Amino acid sequence: MDQKSLLEAGRRLLDPLVAVLADSGVRPAAVTVLGLAITFLASVLVWSGDLFFAAVLLSLGSVLDAADGALARRLRMESASGAVLDSTADRLGEALVFIGIIAGETARIQPVLLYLAPAALCGSFAVSYVRARAEGVGIECRVGVFARTERLLVTIFGLALAGLWDERILPVAVGILALGSFVTASHRLWHVHRSSGKAPGS
Amino acid sequence: MDQKSLLEAGRRLLDPLVAVLADSGVRPAAVTVLGLAITFLASVLVWSGDLFFAAVLLSLGSVLDAADGALARRLRMESASGAVLDSTADRLGEALVFIGIIAGETARIQPVLLYLAPAALCGSFAVSYVRARAEGVGIECRVGVFARTERLLVTIFGLALAGLWDERILPVAVGILALGSFVTASHRLWHVHRSSGKAPGS
Repeated sequence: MDQKSLLEAGRRLLDPLVAVLADSGVRPAAVTVLGLAITFLASVLVWSGDLFFAAVLLSLGSVLDAADGALARRLRMESASGAVLDSTADRLGEALVFIGIIAGETARIQPVLLYLAPAALCGSFAVSYVRARAEGVGIECRVGVFARTERLLVTIFGLALAGLWDERILPVAVGILALGSFVTASHRLWHVHRSSGKAPGS
Repeated sequence: MDQKSLLEAGRRLLDPLVAVLADSGVRPAAVTVLGLAITFLASVLVWSGDLFFAAVLLSLGSVLDAADGALARRLRMESASGAVLDSTADRLGEALVFIGIIAGETARIQPVLLYLAPAALCGSFAVSYVRARAEGVGIECRVGVFARTERLLVTIFGLALAGLWDERILPVAVGILALGSFVTASHRLWHVHRSSGKAPGS
């Protein structure tokens, strides 16, 4: 099963939730804000060191983050500004978890996270930034293995395993996030370089 | 003097440097990489707590970061991929300084920076991300007071004054960066919301 059909399967799993939301008249922007609020609570749990419950809340917030786009499509309320808001909320949600790691109990106990977590925060943003910036100059840029869904899965499993089993798993997961993000951002930059001729003034 | 003519004046100050670089056959990408390398050294000085010298190096790195675009224009080597690389290097350079603050001596002495610096890192990225994402869906988005030049000035003066005078200035400067960035990102999101009609499928 390739990446695209996996995403498609994931979307179909959301269909019942999206149908319920649509029938109850909830607007996509409200789902975006609710998803971000739950992710904020997850980051507070990360901050206090309750890593397993943080993983549970983060999963819930992420499902809502995925549902808002599907809801907008179903209600035919898709808009350019909604897409920008949705993407920005996704980035902010990712960042909140790393801020919780940096500022809280977790990095105090494992100071290596003070290097890894800001690097992962920067790398995650960079992956999405390169794509957005490339699309701004007219270059499609979806390549690379470490897009948001993959980053989110590593984050959720890293938090859950660190909470349940051994907290030293978290620096490993965050290190994978940092490294994988930088590789993907570089891969995308390389893709942009190969896709673009010299277009004076562009 | 408004913001645009200030930028224009700044660009004219760079003209002699750009002329020297052009005559010596240096390529714009090499200037980008050199600027980023100097900014990396600045972030190492931030990490070790040498804030004044960090400010000096960061100024130098930033001049080179501004010179690469001007050099590309002069050599008529502007390209879409060069623009994406240049912007991404700018973001990475901003992030490096915050990583130096978080991981190093500075935040160890003033732990409030463990909240403020990742927030400023996230906010700075968000300001640029919202603009890039908006341009990707066809909406121009240059509004807001806290674009890169302003952020850089606050960072450089904050580091220099904290190094020369009182280190408690740094959390104030980073707090201004975090707050100003979030206000600007929100301003840009609002601008995108007002600029876009509902464009189904966009």
